[in-house]
Amino acid sequence: MNQLEKNILRWQKKPASRKEDRVFIVEGIKMIRELPEERLLCLVASSGFMKENRFRVSDLEKHCNREKKEFLVVSDQEYARLSDTKSPQGILAVLRAYDYTEKEILEKKNGLFVFLENLQDPGNLGTIMRSAEASGADGIILNENSVDPYNPKVIRATMGSFFRMKFAVSPDLTETVRNFRKTGGAVYAAHLMGEKSYDSVSYTGRSAVLIGNESKGLSRQISEEAGDLIRIPMAGKVESLNAAMAATIILFEAMRQRRNGA
Amino acid sequence: MNQLEKNILRWQKKPASRKEDRVFIVEGIKMIRELPEERLLCLVASSGFMKENRFRVSDLEKHCNREKKEFLVVSDQEYARLSDTKSPQGILAVLRAYDYTEKEILEKKNGLFVFLENLQDPGNLGTIMRSAEASGADGIILNENSVDPYNPKVIRATMGSFFRMKFAVSPDLTETVRNFRKTGGAVYAAHLMGEKSYDSVSYTGRSAVLIGNESKGLSRQISEEAGDLIRIPMAGKVESLNAAMAATIILFEAMRQRRNGA
Repeated sequence: MNQLEKNILRWQKKPASRKEDRVFIVEGIKMIRELPEERLLCLVASSGFMKENRFRVSDLEKHCNREKKEFLVVSDQEYARLSDTKSPQGILAVLRAYDYTEKEILEKKNGLFVFLENLQDPGNLGTIMRSAEASGADGIILNENSVDPYNPKVIRATMGSFFRMKFAVSPDLTETVRNFRKTGGAVYAAHLMGEKSYDSVSYTGRSAVLIGNESKGLSRQISEEAGDLIRIPMAGKVESLNAAMAATIILFEAMRQRRNGA
Repeated sequence: MNQLEKNILRWQKKPASRKEDRVFIVEGIKMIRELPEERLLCLVASSGFMKENRFRVSDLEKHCNREKKEFLVVSDQEYARLSDTKSPQGILAVLRAYDYTEKEILEKKNGLFVFLENLQDPGNLGTIMRSAEASGADGIILNENSVDPYNPKVIRATMGSFFRMKFAVSPDLTETVRNFRKTGGAVYAAHLMGEKSYDSVSYTGRSAVLIGNESKGLSRQISEEAGDLIRIPMAGKVESLNAAMAATIILFEAMRQRRNGA
Protein backbone atom coordinates (compact mmCIF):
# COMPACT_ATOMS: atom_id res chain seq x y z
CA MET A 1 0.00 0.00 0.00
CA ASN A 2 1.61 3.23 -1.10
CA GLN A 3 1.40 6.62 0.58
CA LEU A 4 -1.56 7.78 -1.50
CA GLU A 5 -3.59 4.70 -0.54
CA LYS A 6 -2.71 5.23 3.11
CA ASN A 7 -3.87 8.83 2.83
CA ILE A 8 -7.16 7.85 1.19
CA LEU A 9 -7.83 5.30 3.90
CA ARG A 10 -7.16 7.94 6.53
CA TRP A 11 -9.39 10.51 4.80
CA GLN A 12 -12.22 7.99 4.48
CA LYS A 13 -11.99 7.00 8.13
CA LYS A 14 -11.17 10.34 9.74
CA PRO A 15 -13.25 13.24 8.49
CA ALA A 16 -11.09 15.61 10.55
CA SER A 17 -7.97 14.62 8.60
CA ARG A 18 -9.84 15.20 5.33
CA LYS A 19 -10.80 18.65 6.55
CA GLU A 20 -7.28 19.41 7.70
CA ASP A 21 -5.79 18.43 4.35
CA ARG A 22 -8.53 20.39 2.52
CA VAL A 23 -9.55 17.51 0.26
CA PHE A 24 -12.65 15.43 -0.38
CA ILE A 25 -13.38 12.17 -2.09
CA VAL A 26 -16.04 11.31 -4.66
CA GLU A 27 -16.89 7.81 -5.83
CA GLY A 28 -18.77 6.29 -8.72
CA ILE A 29 -19.15 6.83 -12.44
CA LYS A 30 -21.81 9.51 -12.31
CA MET A 31 -19.78 11.72 -10.00
CA ILE A 32 -16.50 11.15 -11.84
CA ARG A 33 -18.19 12.07 -15.09
CA GLU A 34 -19.26 15.44 -13.73
CA LEU A 35 -16.23 16.38 -11.66
CA PRO A 36 -14.55 19.75 -12.23
CA GLU A 37 -11.08 18.93 -13.62
CA GLU A 38 -9.45 21.95 -12.02
CA ARG A 39 -10.11 20.49 -8.57
CA LEU A 40 -8.86 16.97 -9.36
CA LEU A 41 -5.86 15.87 -7.32
CA CYS A 42 -5.72 12.19 -8.21
CA LEU A 43 -7.76 9.28 -9.47
CA VAL A 44 -7.91 5.68 -8.23
CA ALA A 45 -9.54 2.86 -10.20
CA SER A 46 -9.81 -0.89 -9.64
CA SER A 47 -8.41 -3.18 -12.28
CA GLY A 48 -11.91 -4.65 -12.74
CA PHE A 49 -13.27 -1.20 -13.45
CA MET A 50 -10.50 -0.46 -15.97
CA LYS A 51 -11.34 -3.62 -17.90
CA GLU A 52 -15.03 -2.85 -18.15
CA ASN A 53 -15.30 0.89 -18.39
CA ARG A 54 -13.59 3.37 -20.57
CA PHE A 55 -16.01 6.31 -20.97
CA ARG A 56 -14.45 9.43 -19.56
CA VAL A 57 -11.55 7.69 -17.86
CA SER A 58 -9.33 7.93 -20.90
CA ASP A 59 -9.91 11.69 -20.93
CA LEU A 60 -9.16 11.92 -17.26
CA GLU A 61 -6.09 9.71 -17.71
CA LYS A 62 -4.76 12.15 -20.30
CA HIS A 63 -5.63 15.02 -18.01
CA CYS A 64 -3.72 13.39 -15.15
CA ASN A 65 -0.69 12.78 -17.36
CA ARG A 66 -0.70 16.32 -18.65
CA GLU A 67 -1.16 17.89 -15.25
CA LYS A 68 1.16 15.47 -13.49
CA LYS A 69 -1.61 14.12 -11.28
CA GLU A 70 -1.47 10.56 -10.06
CA PHE A 71 -3.71 7.96 -11.75
CA LEU A 72 -3.50 4.80 -9.69
CA VAL A 73 -4.90 1.40 -10.65
CA VAL A 74 -5.22 -1.08 -7.78
CA SER A 75 -6.58 -4.61 -7.46
CA ASP A 76 -10.30 -5.05 -6.82
CA GLN A 77 -9.57 -6.20 -3.27
CA GLU A 78 -7.41 -3.19 -2.53
CA TYR A 79 -10.04 -0.92 -4.03
CA ALA A 80 -12.73 -2.39 -1.80
CA ARG A 81 -10.64 -1.37 1.24
CA LEU A 82 -10.36 2.20 0.02
CA SER A 83 -14.04 2.56 -0.87
CA ASP A 84 -16.67 4.00 1.41
CA THR A 85 -19.51 2.12 -0.30
CA LYS A 86 -20.71 -1.43 0.15
CA SER A 87 -20.80 -2.24 -3.55
CA PRO A 88 -18.00 -0.11 -4.96
CA GLN A 89 -18.16 0.88 -8.61
CA GLY A 90 -14.36 0.83 -8.75
CA ILE A 91 -13.48 4.45 -9.28
CA LEU A 92 -12.82 7.36 -6.94
CA ALA A 93 -11.25 10.76 -7.15
CA VAL A 94 -9.59 12.98 -4.57
CA LEU A 95 -10.44 16.63 -5.08
CA ARG A 96 -9.36 19.90 -3.59
CA ALA A 97 -12.00 21.19 -1.15
CA TYR A 98 -14.12 24.20 -2.02
CA ASP A 99 -13.36 27.44 -0.32
CA TYR A 100 -16.39 29.63 -0.86
CA THR A 101 -16.86 32.12 1.91
CA GLU A 102 -20.21 33.04 3.38
CA LYS A 103 -19.54 36.65 2.41
CA GLU A 104 -18.94 35.88 -1.23
CA ILE A 105 -21.98 33.60 -1.48
CA LEU A 106 -24.32 36.14 0.09
CA GLU A 107 -22.98 38.95 -2.05
CA LYS A 108 -25.46 38.21 -4.80
CA LYS A 109 -27.97 41.00 -4.35
CA ASN A 110 -31.23 39.44 -5.42
CA GLY A 111 -30.16 35.93 -4.49
CA LEU A 112 -32.21 33.06 -3.11
CA PHE A 113 -30.44 31.19 -0.33
CA VAL A 114 -30.91 28.27 2.03
CA PHE A 115 -29.86 28.51 5.68
CA LEU A 116 -29.62 25.25 7.61
CA GLU A 117 -29.50 24.95 11.39
CA ASN A 118 -28.43 21.63 12.94
CA LEU A 119 -29.48 19.55 9.95
CA GLN A 120 -28.21 16.05 10.75
CA ASP A 121 -29.09 13.63 7.99
CA PRO A 122 -26.61 13.41 5.09
CA GLY A 123 -29.35 12.26 2.70
CA ASN A 124 -31.40 15.33 3.58
CA LEU A 125 -28.50 17.71 2.99
CA GLY A 126 -27.75 16.02 -0.34
CA THR A 127 -31.37 16.27 -1.44
CA ILE A 128 -31.54 19.92 -0.37
CA MET A 129 -28.39 20.71 -2.40
CA ARG A 130 -29.99 19.07 -5.41
CA SER A 131 -33.32 20.87 -4.95
CA ALA A 132 -31.44 24.13 -4.39
CA GLU A 133 -29.67 23.77 -7.73
CA ALA A 134 -32.85 22.69 -9.54
CA SER A 135 -34.81 25.62 -8.13
CA GLY A 136 -32.15 28.15 -9.04
CA ALA A 137 -30.97 28.96 -5.52
CA ASP A 138 -27.63 30.73 -5.20
CA GLY A 139 -26.08 29.08 -2.19
CA ILE A 140 -26.40 27.25 1.11
CA ILE A 141 -25.15 28.37 4.51
CA LEU A 142 -24.99 25.76 7.27
CA ASN A 143 -24.14 26.20 10.92
CA GLU A 144 -21.26 24.24 12.43
CA ASN A 145 -23.51 21.71 14.11
CA SER A 146 -24.97 20.58 10.81
CA VAL A 147 -23.74 17.46 9.03
CA ASP A 148 -20.38 17.88 7.24
CA PRO A 149 -21.13 18.79 3.60
CA TYR A 150 -18.15 16.65 2.51
CA ASN A 151 -19.63 13.53 4.11
CA PRO A 152 -19.59 10.91 1.29
CA LYS A 153 -23.30 10.23 1.79
CA VAL A 154 -24.10 13.91 1.26
CA ILE A 155 -22.03 14.00 -1.92
CA ARG A 156 -23.69 10.86 -3.31
CA ALA A 157 -27.19 12.13 -2.55
CA THR A 158 -26.57 15.36 -4.49
CA MET A 159 -26.14 13.35 -7.72
CA GLY A 160 -23.63 15.89 -9.01
CA SER A 161 -25.19 19.08 -7.65
CA PHE A 162 -22.37 19.07 -5.12
CA PHE A 163 -20.02 20.34 -7.82
CA ARG A 164 -22.28 23.22 -8.72
CA MET A 165 -24.07 24.45 -5.60
CA LYS A 166 -22.08 26.90 -3.48
CA PHE A 167 -22.03 26.29 0.26
CA ALA A 168 -20.24 27.61 3.33
CA VAL A 169 -20.29 26.90 7.03
CA SER A 170 -21.19 29.81 9.28
CA PRO A 171 -19.61 30.00 12.74
CA ASP A 172 -22.74 31.81 13.97
CA LEU A 173 -25.89 31.28 11.92
CA THR A 174 -27.98 33.60 14.09
CA GLU A 175 -25.49 36.35 13.26
CA THR A 176 -25.76 35.37 9.57
CA VAL A 177 -29.54 35.77 9.76
CA ARG A 178 -29.20 39.14 11.46
CA ASN A 179 -26.72 40.45 8.89
CA PHE A 180 -28.74 39.11 6.00
CA ARG A 181 -31.77 41.05 7.16
CA LYS A 182 -29.63 44.17 7.61
CA THR A 183 -28.67 43.93 3.94
CA GLY A 184 -32.33 43.97 2.93
CA GLY A 185 -32.89 40.21 2.84
CA ALA A 186 -36.05 38.43 3.99
CA VAL A 187 -35.53 35.31 6.07
CA TYR A 188 -38.38 32.80 5.99
CA ALA A 189 -38.10 30.27 8.79
CA ALA A 190 -39.94 26.99 8.23
CA HIS A 191 -41.70 26.44 11.54
CA LEU A 192 -44.62 24.28 12.65
CA MET A 193 -45.92 27.31 14.54
CA GLY A 194 -45.52 29.59 11.52
CA GLU A 195 -48.39 32.03 11.13
CA LYS A 196 -48.03 32.62 7.42
CA SER A 197 -48.42 30.00 4.76
CA TYR A 198 -45.20 29.48 2.76
CA ASP A 199 -46.99 30.55 -0.43
CA SER A 200 -48.31 33.81 1.01
CA VAL A 201 -44.89 35.48 1.27
CA SER A 202 -42.75 36.82 -1.55
CA TYR A 203 -39.44 35.28 -2.58
CA THR A 204 -38.91 37.55 -5.56
CA GLY A 205 -36.47 39.81 -3.72
CA ARG A 206 -33.33 38.87 -1.80
CA SER A 207 -34.49 35.96 0.38
CA ALA A 208 -33.39 33.00 2.44
CA VAL A 209 -35.27 29.87 3.47
CA LEU A 210 -34.29 28.74 6.96
CA ILE A 211 -34.67 25.05 7.82
CA GLY A 212 -33.98 23.42 11.18
CA ASN A 213 -33.14 20.08 12.69
CA GLU A 214 -35.06 16.99 11.55
CA SER A 215 -36.65 16.25 14.90
CA LYS A 216 -36.36 19.47 16.91
CA GLY A 217 -36.96 22.04 14.19
CA LEU A 218 -35.42 25.50 14.60
CA SER A 219 -34.00 26.85 17.85
CA ARG A 220 -35.97 29.62 19.52
CA GLN A 221 -33.03 31.97 19.26
CA ILE A 222 -32.76 31.80 15.48
CA SER A 223 -36.54 31.74 14.97
CA GLU A 224 -36.76 35.03 16.82
CA GLU A 225 -34.04 36.54 14.68
CA ALA A 226 -35.77 35.53 11.43
CA GLY A 227 -38.44 37.89 10.18
CA ASP A 228 -41.22 35.55 9.24
CA LEU A 229 -42.14 32.12 10.48
CA ILE A 230 -43.79 30.23 7.65
CA ARG A 231 -45.51 26.89 7.61
CA ILE A 232 -46.60 24.45 4.95
CA PRO A 233 -50.33 23.84 5.44
CA MET A 234 -50.99 20.11 5.64
CA ALA A 235 -54.05 17.97 5.25
CA GLY A 236 -54.67 14.66 7.00
CA LYS A 237 -52.87 13.73 10.18
CA VAL A 238 -49.33 14.35 8.99
CA GLU A 239 -47.52 16.14 11.80
CA SER A 240 -44.54 17.34 9.85
CA LEU A 241 -42.79 16.78 6.57
CA ASN A 242 -39.25 15.51 6.23
CA ALA A 243 -36.80 18.46 6.25
CA ALA A 244 -35.70 17.86 2.65
CA MET A 245 -39.32 17.68 1.47
CA ALA A 246 -40.20 20.91 3.25
CA ALA A 247 -37.16 22.69 1.81
CA THR A 248 -37.98 21.41 -1.69
CA ILE A 249 -41.61 22.55 -1.54
CA ILE A 250 -40.62 26.04 -0.39
CA LEU A 251 -37.76 26.37 -2.88
CA PHE A 252 -39.97 25.41 -5.81
CA GLU A 253 -42.62 27.88 -4.68
CA ALA A 254 -39.84 30.52 -4.65
CA MET A 255 -38.81 29.46 -8.14
CA ARG A 256 -42.42 29.56 -9.34
CA GLN A 257 -42.81 33.12 -8.07
CA ARG A 258 -39.48 34.21 -9.52
CA ARG A 259 -40.31 32.65 -12.88
CA ASN A 260 -43.77 34.15 -13.05
CA GLY A 261 -42.62 37.47 -11.63
CA ALA A 262 -45.45 37.08 -9.09
CA MET B 1 -41.65 -21.59 17.95
CA ASN B 2 -45.44 -21.64 17.80
CA GLN B 3 -47.66 -21.50 14.73
CA LEU B 4 -48.08 -17.73 14.85
CA GLU B 5 -44.32 -17.20 14.90
CA LYS B 6 -43.92 -19.58 11.98
CA ASN B 7 -46.56 -17.68 10.07
CA ILE B 8 -44.91 -14.34 10.77
CA LEU B 9 -41.56 -15.68 9.60
CA ARG B 10 -43.20 -16.89 6.42
CA TRP B 11 -45.01 -13.59 5.83
CA GLN B 12 -41.79 -11.64 6.35
CA LYS B 13 -39.82 -13.83 3.96
CA LYS B 14 -42.44 -14.53 1.32
CA PRO B 15 -44.45 -11.50 0.22
CA ALA B 16 -46.67 -13.80 -1.88
CA SER B 17 -47.80 -15.70 1.23
CA ARG B 18 -48.58 -12.40 2.94
CA LYS B 19 -50.70 -11.40 -0.03
CA GLU B 20 -52.44 -14.77 -0.14
CA ASP B 21 -53.35 -14.60 3.54
CA ARG B 22 -54.46 -10.96 3.15
CA VAL B 23 -52.34 -9.65 6.02
CA PHE B 24 -49.52 -7.20 6.50
CA ILE B 25 -47.02 -6.49 9.23
CA VAL B 26 -46.03 -3.21 10.82
CA GLU B 27 -43.12 -2.71 13.18
CA GLY B 28 -42.01 -0.05 15.62
CA ILE B 29 -43.53 2.18 18.23
CA LYS B 30 -44.64 4.99 15.93
CA MET B 31 -46.57 2.65 13.67
CA ILE B 32 -48.09 0.65 16.53
CA ARG B 33 -49.24 3.86 18.15
CA GLU B 34 -51.19 4.87 15.06
CA LEU B 35 -52.56 1.53 13.94
CA PRO B 36 -56.30 1.15 13.33
CA GLU B 37 -57.53 -1.28 16.02
CA GLU B 38 -60.24 -2.73 13.81
CA ARG B 39 -57.57 -4.20 11.51
CA LEU B 40 -55.40 -5.67 14.28
CA LEU B 41 -55.06 -9.47 14.18
CA CYS B 42 -52.30 -9.98 16.72
CA LEU B 43 -49.40 -8.29 18.47
CA VAL B 44 -45.90 -9.60 19.18
CA ALA B 45 -43.48 -7.92 21.59
CA SER B 46 -40.03 -8.82 22.86
CA SER B 47 -39.54 -9.24 26.58
CA GLY B 48 -36.99 -6.40 26.49
CA PHE B 49 -39.58 -4.12 24.93
CA MET B 50 -42.18 -5.07 27.55
CA LYS B 51 -39.80 -4.13 30.36
CA GLU B 52 -38.98 -0.72 28.94
CA ASN B 53 -42.10 0.48 27.20
CA ARG B 54 -45.63 0.67 28.32
CA PHE B 55 -47.23 3.58 26.40
CA ARG B 56 -50.07 2.29 24.28
CA VAL B 57 -49.26 -1.39 24.74
CA SER B 58 -51.39 -1.70 27.83
CA ASP B 59 -54.32 -0.33 25.82
CA LEU B 60 -53.61 -2.73 23.00
CA GLU B 61 -53.20 -5.56 25.48
CA LYS B 62 -56.66 -4.87 26.82
CA HIS B 63 -57.97 -4.60 23.30
CA CYS B 64 -56.45 -7.99 22.42
CA ASN B 65 -57.95 -9.59 25.53
CA ARG B 66 -61.35 -8.13 24.86
CA GLU B 67 -61.36 -9.04 21.19
CA LYS B 68 -59.70 -12.43 21.74
CA LYS B 69 -56.67 -11.50 19.66
CA GLU B 70 -53.33 -13.01 20.45
CA PHE B 71 -50.75 -10.91 22.32
CA LEU B 72 -47.50 -12.81 22.27
CA VAL B 73 -44.35 -11.94 24.23
CA VAL B 74 -41.18 -13.62 23.01
CA SER B 75 -37.51 -13.46 24.00
CA ASP B 76 -35.36 -10.71 22.45
CA GLN B 77 -33.50 -13.32 20.39
CA GLU B 78 -36.70 -14.81 19.06
CA TYR B 79 -38.03 -11.36 18.28
CA ALA B 80 -34.90 -10.51 16.29
CA ARG B 81 -35.61 -13.51 14.05
CA LEU B 82 -39.18 -12.34 13.39
CA SER B 83 -38.23 -8.74 12.70
CA ASP B 84 -37.57 -7.30 9.28
CA THR B 85 -35.36 -4.50 10.60
CA LYS B 86 -31.70 -4.48 11.56
CA SER B 87 -32.23 -2.82 14.91
CA PRO B 88 -35.68 -4.01 15.96
CA GLN B 89 -37.67 -1.88 18.38
CA GLY B 90 -39.25 -5.01 19.77
CA ILE B 91 -42.87 -4.68 18.75
CA LEU B 92 -44.80 -5.69 15.68
CA ALA B 93 -48.42 -6.15 14.71
CA VAL B 94 -50.12 -8.30 12.11
CA LEU B 95 -53.02 -6.51 10.46
CA ARG B 96 -55.73 -7.41 8.03
CA ALA B 97 -54.89 -6.05 4.55
CA TYR B 98 -56.83 -3.16 3.08
CA ASP B 99 -59.32 -3.90 0.37
CA TYR B 100 -60.06 -0.59 -1.27
CA THR B 101 -61.05 -0.99 -4.88
CA GLU B 102 -59.93 1.31 -7.65
CA LYS B 103 -63.56 2.05 -8.40
CA GLU B 104 -64.40 3.14 -4.88
CA ILE B 105 -61.27 5.31 -4.59
CA LEU B 106 -61.89 7.07 -7.88
CA GLU B 107 -65.55 7.63 -7.08
CA LYS B 108 -64.81 10.90 -5.31
CA LYS B 109 -65.97 13.41 -7.87
CA ASN B 110 -63.64 16.34 -7.38
CA GLY B 111 -60.83 14.19 -6.06
CA LEU B 112 -57.08 14.60 -6.44
CA PHE B 113 -55.31 11.33 -7.17
CA VAL B 114 -51.85 9.92 -7.81
CA PHE B 115 -51.27 7.31 -10.53
CA LEU B 116 -47.97 5.43 -10.41
CA GLU B 117 -46.51 3.41 -13.27
CA ASN B 118 -43.63 1.00 -12.55
CA LEU B 119 -42.46 2.87 -9.47
CA GLN B 120 -39.77 0.62 -7.98
CA ASP B 121 -38.27 2.16 -4.88
CA PRO B 122 -40.10 1.44 -1.60
CA GLY B 123 -38.79 4.67 -0.04
CA ASN B 124 -40.22 6.66 -2.93
CA LEU B 125 -43.65 5.04 -2.63
CA GLY B 126 -43.64 5.65 1.12
CA THR B 127 -42.71 9.30 0.67
CA ILE B 128 -45.35 9.73 -2.03
CA MET B 129 -48.01 8.25 0.28
CA ARG B 130 -46.98 10.70 2.97
CA SER B 131 -46.95 13.67 0.60
CA ALA B 132 -50.29 12.55 -0.81
CA GLU B 133 -51.85 12.61 2.64
CA ALA B 134 -50.22 15.93 3.56
CA SER B 135 -51.40 17.56 0.33
CA GLY B 136 -54.95 16.34 0.75
CA ALA B 137 -54.94 13.81 -2.09
CA ASP B 138 -57.73 11.23 -2.09
CA GLY B 139 -55.97 8.07 -3.18
CA ILE B 140 -53.20 6.34 -5.06
CA ILE B 141 -53.54 3.87 -7.94
CA LEU B 142 -50.47 1.80 -8.83
CA ASN B 143 -49.95 -0.59 -11.70
CA GLU B 144 -49.03 -4.20 -11.01
CA ASN B 145 -45.36 -3.69 -11.87
CA SER B 146 -44.91 -1.11 -9.15
CA VAL B 147 -43.41 -1.97 -5.78
CA ASP B 148 -45.77 -3.84 -3.42
CA PRO B 149 -47.43 -1.22 -1.18
CA TYR B 150 -47.26 -3.70 1.74
CA ASN B 151 -43.46 -3.94 1.47
CA PRO B 152 -42.22 -3.19 5.03
CA LYS B 153 -39.90 -0.43 3.72
CA VAL B 154 -42.86 1.31 2.09
CA ILE B 155 -44.87 1.14 5.30
CA ARG B 156 -42.00 2.49 7.40
CA ALA B 157 -41.34 5.38 4.99
CA THR B 158 -44.97 6.53 5.19
CA MET B 159 -44.54 7.30 8.91
CA GLY B 160 -48.16 6.38 9.55
CA SER B 161 -49.75 7.75 6.39
CA PHE B 162 -50.07 4.12 5.29
CA PHE B 163 -53.02 3.75 7.66
CA ARG B 164 -54.81 6.74 6.20
CA MET B 165 -54.06 7.00 2.48
CA LYS B 166 -56.25 4.85 0.25
CA PHE B 167 -54.51 2.85 -2.45
CA ALA B 168 -55.34 0.15 -4.97
CA VAL B 169 -53.48 -1.79 -7.62
CA SER B 170 -54.81 -1.47 -11.15
CA PRO B 171 -54.49 -4.45 -13.52
CA ASP B 172 -54.26 -1.99 -16.43
CA LEU B 173 -53.19 1.54 -15.57
CA THR B 174 -53.53 2.78 -19.16
CA GLU B 175 -57.17 1.71 -18.99
CA THR B 176 -57.46 3.50 -15.63
CA VAL B 177 -56.17 6.69 -17.24
CA ARG B 178 -58.58 6.33 -20.15
CA ASN B 179 -61.58 5.79 -17.88
CA PHE B 180 -60.56 8.60 -15.57
CA ARG B 181 -60.54 11.02 -18.47
CA LYS B 182 -63.92 9.71 -19.64
CA THR B 183 -65.36 10.63 -16.25
CA GLY B 184 -64.18 14.22 -16.68
CA GLY B 185 -60.83 13.90 -14.97
CA ALA B 186 -57.61 15.59 -16.08
CA VAL B 187 -54.50 13.43 -16.05
CA TYR B 188 -51.21 15.30 -15.73
CA ALA B 189 -48.25 13.14 -16.65
CA ALA B 190 -44.90 14.24 -15.22
CA HIS B 191 -42.58 13.97 -18.20
CA LEU B 192 -39.18 15.42 -19.02
CA MET B 193 -40.52 16.28 -22.46
CA GLY B 194 -43.64 17.91 -21.02
CA GLU B 195 -44.64 21.07 -22.85
CA LYS B 196 -46.54 22.70 -20.04
CA SER B 197 -45.06 23.75 -16.74
CA TYR B 198 -46.63 21.90 -13.79
CA ASP B 199 -47.86 25.20 -12.36
CA SER B 200 -49.58 26.35 -15.56
CA VAL B 201 -52.31 23.70 -15.41
CA SER B 202 -55.30 23.58 -13.09
CA TYR B 203 -55.74 20.94 -10.40
CA THR B 204 -58.87 22.46 -8.93
CA GLY B 205 -61.17 20.00 -10.68
CA ARG B 206 -61.07 16.22 -10.72
CA SER B 207 -57.39 15.48 -11.44
CA ALA B 208 -54.66 12.88 -11.29
CA VAL B 209 -50.90 13.26 -11.22
CA LEU B 210 -49.19 10.47 -13.16
CA ILE B 211 -45.62 9.55 -12.17
CA GLY B 212 -43.41 6.95 -13.85
CA ASN B 213 -40.43 4.76 -13.18
CA GLU B 214 -37.40 6.22 -11.38
CA SER B 215 -34.98 5.79 -14.26
CA LYS B 216 -37.13 5.29 -17.35
CA GLY B 217 -39.99 7.69 -16.63
CA LEU B 218 -43.41 6.96 -18.11
CA SER B 219 -44.05 4.48 -20.92
CA ARG B 220 -45.00 5.97 -24.27
CA GLN B 221 -48.31 4.15 -24.23
CA ILE B 222 -49.53 5.72 -21.01
CA SER B 223 -48.07 9.15 -21.83
CA GLU B 224 -50.15 9.18 -25.00
CA GLU B 225 -53.27 8.26 -23.09
CA ALA B 226 -52.78 11.07 -20.57
CA GLY B 227 -54.08 14.45 -21.65
CA ASP B 228 -51.26 16.73 -20.64
CA LEU B 229 -47.56 16.13 -20.27
CA ILE B 230 -46.22 18.48 -17.64
CA ARG B 231 -42.68 19.19 -16.55
CA ILE B 232 -41.08 20.87 -13.58
CA PRO B 233 -38.85 23.64 -14.92
CA MET B 234 -35.37 23.27 -13.49
CA ALA B 235 -32.40 25.57 -13.18
CA GLY B 236 -28.77 24.50 -13.20
CA LYS B 237 -27.66 21.23 -14.71
CA VAL B 238 -30.07 18.94 -12.85
CA GLU B 239 -31.39 16.46 -15.38
CA SER B 240 -34.29 15.16 -13.38
CA LEU B 241 -35.65 15.14 -9.87
CA ASN B 242 -36.18 12.04 -7.78
CA ALA B 243 -39.70 10.63 -8.41
CA ALA B 244 -40.85 11.33 -4.86
CA MET B 245 -39.60 14.91 -5.01
CA ALA B 246 -41.35 15.51 -8.33
CA ALA B 247 -44.60 14.05 -7.01
CA THR B 248 -44.36 16.16 -3.86
CA ILE B 249 -43.74 19.41 -5.75
CA ILE B 250 -46.71 18.80 -8.05
CA LEU B 251 -49.03 17.66 -5.23
CA PHE B 252 -48.28 20.74 -3.15
CA GLU B 253 -48.87 22.97 -6.16
CA ALA B 254 -52.24 21.22 -6.54
CA MET B 255 -52.95 21.82 -2.87
CA ARG B 256 -51.92 25.47 -3.16
CA GLN B 257 -54.34 25.97 -6.05
CA ARG B 258 -57.14 24.12 -4.29
CA ARG B 259 -56.61 26.10 -1.11
CA ASN B 260 -56.48 29.45 -2.87
CA GLY B 261 -59.27 28.56 -5.26
CA ALA B 262 -56.88 29.61 -8.05
